[in-house]
Amino acid sequence: MPEPIAPVTAAVLVIGDEILSGRTKDKNIGSIAERLTEIGIDLREVRVVPDEASEIVSAVNALRARYTYLFTTGGIGPTHDDITADSVAAAFEVGIDVDARARAMLLERHKPEDLNEARLRMARIPHGADLIPNPVSKAPGFSIGNVFVMAGVPQIMNAMLDAVLPGLSQGVPVLAETIEAGGLPEGAFATGLSAIAARHGSVSIGSYPSMTQSGFANRIVVRGRDAEAVAAARVEIEAMLETLKR
Amino acid sequence: MPEPIAPVTAAVLVIGDEILSGRTKDKNIGSIAERLTEIGIDLREVRVVPDEASEIVSAVNALRARYTYLFTTGGIGPTHDDITADSVAAAFEVGIDVDARARAMLLERHKPEDLNEARLRMARIPHGADLIPNPVSKAPGFSIGNVFVMAGVPQIMNAMLDAVLPGLSQGVPVLAETIEAGGLPEGAFATGLSAIAARHGSVSIGSYPSMTQSGFANRIVVRGRDAEAVAAARVEIEAMLETLKR
Repeated sequence: MPEPIAPVTAAVLVIGDEILSGRTKDKNIGSIAERLTEIGIDLREVRVVPDEASEIVSAVNALRARYTYLFTTGGIGPTHDDITADSVAAAFEVGIDVDARARAMLLERHKPEDLNEARLRMARIPHGADLIPNPVSKAPGFSIGNVFVMAGVPQIMNAMLDAVLPGLSQGVPVLAETIEAGGLPEGAFATGLSAIAARHGSVSIGSYPSMTQSGFANRIVVRGRDAEAVAAARVEIEAMLETLKR
Repeated sequence: MPEPIAPVTAAVLVIGDEILSGRTKDKNIGSIAERLTEIGIDLREVRVVPDEASEIVSAVNALRARYTYLFTTGGIGPTHDDITADSVAAAFEVGIDVDARARAMLLERHKPEDLNEARLRMARIPHGADLIPNPVSKAPGFSIGNVFVMAGVPQIMNAMLDAVLPGLSQGVPVLAETIEAGGLPEGAFATGLSAIAARHGSVSIGSYPSMTQSGFANRIVVRGRDAEAVAAARVEIEAMLETLKR
């Protein structure tokens, strides 16, 4: 048998009071989750914390130790509440200053006379970090160690992720097959599904209810890294559902 | 001066592989955040974890110790991957069995002959828990200690929250005033905003950029529990923005 490839794991840290207050609805968790799944990286945890240095430092240190990669979003703008860069520097116990490369990127967008103290805050980069280009508005993200620090604005975050993802270790992509359970309620197929799950330990089988106007719309998702195992489980699930529909 | 009211804080724990894979986009974080803000409860942290017992136990124990309330969503259905109730029982080190009250609720929806083993899983409730009614599909949530365990399906979660919120300690509601910065970029007003923030320590002032087709659309939000302090900061911010627009 081929050597199993070690899983590549990730966490996402969403930084922002406005998410916790509910005034802004986060979209980045879902986007990053999808994009990591496509390249076989397992997103294992997400945290949302306030714009507070101690919270950011503590979450960054907990998550970067535990997973292959940590992606942060938010808090790298020019205003006084944008404290992510300083907090990440503190987490890594490194210094932080205006970075010449970052200043040069900002000058692609701002005339020198407009590069005021606030805008220069966006060029403050922890010592030792690499920059992540921002084709949308020029102010770069950065990466240090296994941590990728990105913008909160979804359009900019996704542009930064475009630059980051190709360079990462990719795991074996997880294949997913979805079986619509039609109008069948979970309670009707759960016992059969559980038995199938017990016989197919190399895949994960999840049941995801949702509601439409006419009632529950349930879907079963088989996920696994081996196409044959996924297909075998799928065949059994479809057969089991058929027996219930008669 | 009146005695300050101690803040009432909360965390949310979203349980579900399907959120972490990106196949399902969570809507509950935003809804719960909004609803808690309305009643003055400060949501301070959100975590998303897989349907894995050790992860759920560990997150439940960390969060319930740190905040006034913990709300969990997901994993209380009838299928084999619904392990939240057992995990919460393990976190509290209590037993778990089919609960007579919960079984009675399920019988409001299912005929006795249809109350199979899988559906009865939804009546498994940790010892000592109270039930949270589910007017949508009858299978109850539950609360134990300061932890409220709710469904993942948004319609059902919100119905459960309807039952839960009135019984909670409410903080003093946080007032929020939003000032649209029009087409002004953050870099133009950040310095002025920072100076105002430094002078108004009892409010929080955040700057939240977003993008429309015509460029940045920035909004400034002043938040605080004292109406006069919020209004005073607002007046200064509006005046400062006016000077920039000339």
